[in-house]
Amino acid sequence: MRLSQLFTKSSKDISKDEVSKNAELLMKGGYIFKEMAGVYSYLPLGLRVLQKIVSIIREEMNAIGGQEIQMTTLQSKKLWESTGRWSDDVVDVWFKSALKNGSDLGLAFTHEEAITRIMTQHIHSHKDLPVYAYQFQTKFRNETRAKSGIMRCREFLMKDLYSFSKDKKSHDEFYEKIWAAYQRIFERVGLGEYTYVTFSSGGSFSKFSHEFQTICDAGEDTIYLDRRKKIAINKEVYNEEVLNSLGLKAEDLEELRGAEVGNIFSLGERFSSALKLHYSDENGESKAAFMGSYGIGPGRVMGVIVELFSDEAGIIWPESVAPFKVHLLCLSKEKSLIEKAENIYLELQNIGVEVLFDDRFDLNAGHRLRDSDLLGMPYRMILSDQSLKKGGIELTVRKNGKSEIISLKEVIERYLS
Amino acid sequence: MRLSQLFTKSSKDISKDEVSKNAELLMKGGYIFKEMAGVYSYLPLGLRVLQKIVSIIREEMNAIGGQEIQMTTLQSKKLWESTGRWSDDVVDVWFKSALKNGSDLGLAFTHEEAITRIMTQHIHSHKDLPVYAYQFQTKFRNETRAKSGIMRCREFLMKDLYSFSKDKKSHDEFYEKIWAAYQRIFERVGLGEYTYVTFSSGGSFSKFSHEFQTICDAGEDTIYLDRRKKIAINKEVYNEEVLNSLGLKAEDLEELRGAEVGNIFSLGERFSSALKLHYSDENGESKAAFMGSYGIGPGRVMGVIVELFSDEAGIIWPESVAPFKVHLLCLSKEKSLIEKAENIYLELQNIGVEVLFDDRFDLNAGHRLRDSDLLGMPYRMILSDQSLKKGGIELTVRKNGKSEIISLKEVIERYLS
Repeated sequence: MRLSQLFTKSSKDISKDEVSKNAELLMKGGYIFKEMAGVYSYLPLGLRVLQKIVSIIREEMNAIGGQEIQMTTLQSKKLWESTGRWSDDVVDVWFKSALKNGSDLGLAFTHEEAITRIMTQHIHSHKDLPVYAYQFQTKFRNETRAKSGIMRCREFLMKDLYSFSKDKKSHDEFYEKIWAAYQRIFERVGLGEYTYVTFSSGGSFSKFSHEFQTICDAGEDTIYLDRRKKIAINKEVYNEEVLNSLGLKAEDLEELRGAEVGNIFSLGERFSSALKLHYSDENGESKAAFMGSYGIGPGRVMGVIVELFSDEAGIIWPESVAPFKVHLLCLSKEKSLIEKAENIYLELQNIGVEVLFDDRFDLNAGHRLRDSDLLGMPYRMILSDQSLKKGGIELTVRKNGKSEIISLKEVIERYLS
Repeated sequence: MRLSQLFTKSSKDISKDEVSKNAELLMKGGYIFKEMAGVYSYLPLGLRVLQKIVSIIREEMNAIGGQEIQMTTLQSKKLWESTGRWSDDVVDVWFKSALKNGSDLGLAFTHEEAITRIMTQHIHSHKDLPVYAYQFQTKFRNETRAKSGIMRCREFLMKDLYSFSKDKKSHDEFYEKIWAAYQRIFERVGLGEYTYVTFSSGGSFSKFSHEFQTICDAGEDTIYLDRRKKIAINKEVYNEEVLNSLGLKAEDLEELRGAEVGNIFSLGERFSSALKLHYSDENGESKAAFMGSYGIGPGRVMGVIVELFSDEAGIIWPESVAPFKVHLLCLSKEKSLIEKAENIYLELQNIGVEVLFDDRFDLNAGHRLRDSDLLGMPYRMILSDQSLKKGGIELTVRKNGKSEIISLKEVIERYLS
């Protein structure tokens, strides 16, 4: 894409009421727009990042047998009353609205009730199990405070998968599979080495749930991490008994801030019983399906990435989620050089490399270089009189700042293939 | 995909309160689930269709310079007050809600206000124009009645593009481009020959808006069509003066039902003035940007396709939007035949053909054939003892029912490449 065509512009100053680093950098770079606290629109560059994270998650969900669906935001009171979750006293993040005839509606903050009811139409026999259904859907949560940028929003995209198994044993087998899939996802988006499985509070059907916590100063959780064993405990459930049951020792643990980038939950029969999702087992007996739920917020993942991978000059995208792999600049206005840059732009695209081409020749070099740092593509290629004299293109790796002047052929061989 | 793995099942009977043909067939086929009147979840097959329609629209929007973004559902009262569209007396389809601090919120039924405000940060000079931004976003409309299945929903996906031009002339140039793009879209999804540009009521900045109306008994509009000139007039604006200004004669017109599958609108300076989206022109003078908006509802398009392309047995998908191109059935339980079918399934996938493979060998043939008609893939391939004896596979074209027994090689050459 040509920067001259991209409608967004970077800005040096943004509204002072934005206190989170991720939103500040993303707003300065024109990645997002703040509609109100906790409510952000995604502009072209931001949406590209979000869509890349979504694609990675989708691939991994499909690989373990997930079937993609799309449920609705509008939810009926009656459905949620049947599980006891309609009341604002029970769930304190509801946004409520109403139809014109006065019927109450809620905006889904999660979808256990909805998916369970859908499954009552499709699951009847043990032969219909297991089923794994997932969606990417906007969730609405009426948070009292929303000061963590896109890490905690009132409206945000969520991947939620729901599993339906015939019994705990079959459920546990899938639980391990999706656990591994989550690890692959965080690895692929660049958060792997900072993200730890964390034991957190369970529910009636299991002692613990499991969170994936990324070590991050802007995180809202406190966790205790055993780095050697790669296990953490959320402060919520931290006590001696839990330590013992996990075979951990207090003296091996570090207290850290964590951002919950994913969670996996055993729900047991809580929802299937309430909504009568029954199947007949091998002996013809009626049983409630055993459920689990598994969430990842792609927007939160994006926010955490910016928190972890940025410096004073801007963002440092991991290659897998960067909006473009290469930021190409031609710093000369000389026609032959511009032509060379245009050719490089086309050539890279022809071999499938995503390039952001700064063709804003009317702006000064300082402005354009600052933009390049702020926007944070993994590789910057500068074409200038100087670089050409030295035999090529100045390639700078954003994450370590290393620069060298090499030929296009070398750039492609070493970095882009 | 294997039907034995797909979690949805067809059903003969659905709730009697569903009166629209499109929703009835889609619910019977397990394509969608009705959450409440006008609110439908998309199940795996339904989401595949929707995503194909979305992909076609996205390609055409990108091809004319559209930049994809994603705005938000939650909207602040203040923003909409500035254009006079907050009051329920002015806009009667609002869903309203509130933050915990009592601040009013609306659920976006359209996004002119939001996009215009975003652009005030990015458009300053004539050099920043034109800009074309679009999104696929869920809209919420508090309809009093919602009885047309997925053709008119209270919650529905919409592609809305907004154009920002420096003046009417530049606006008109883009208007023609997107007009042509819309024609390509309706052509590609299979509605081309039934869809007509229809003159409808404009606004303060243009005499008419243009709708794309598909001739369809379930449509909610009445239009007057001149088939020869391929122009229609919406009943809303039908009068002698309009007839004259379009050079049409009453006696050449047919009165028909139409479903509005798209619309394009000149907005002029209505929103840019109200929200102070000003740019400095070539002479340094401050001017309001000239806007247009352009909508297509992918869900409505899907509903209209089902209305037009179905028979008593079920749906007849056009190839471009079918969830799978081929429905493969093996009607024998004999091991060697099943193996042959498995090989065909793999072979077709290897050459990039999307196949729905009915491997539910425990169900009777009648049930499986009925499902195949109901689900409506363009090509059905049956492998049976009889077909093999006659030298191949029984291929049936869903749209005309033509059947023949031919070799796999011929199937591929004639229908799948």
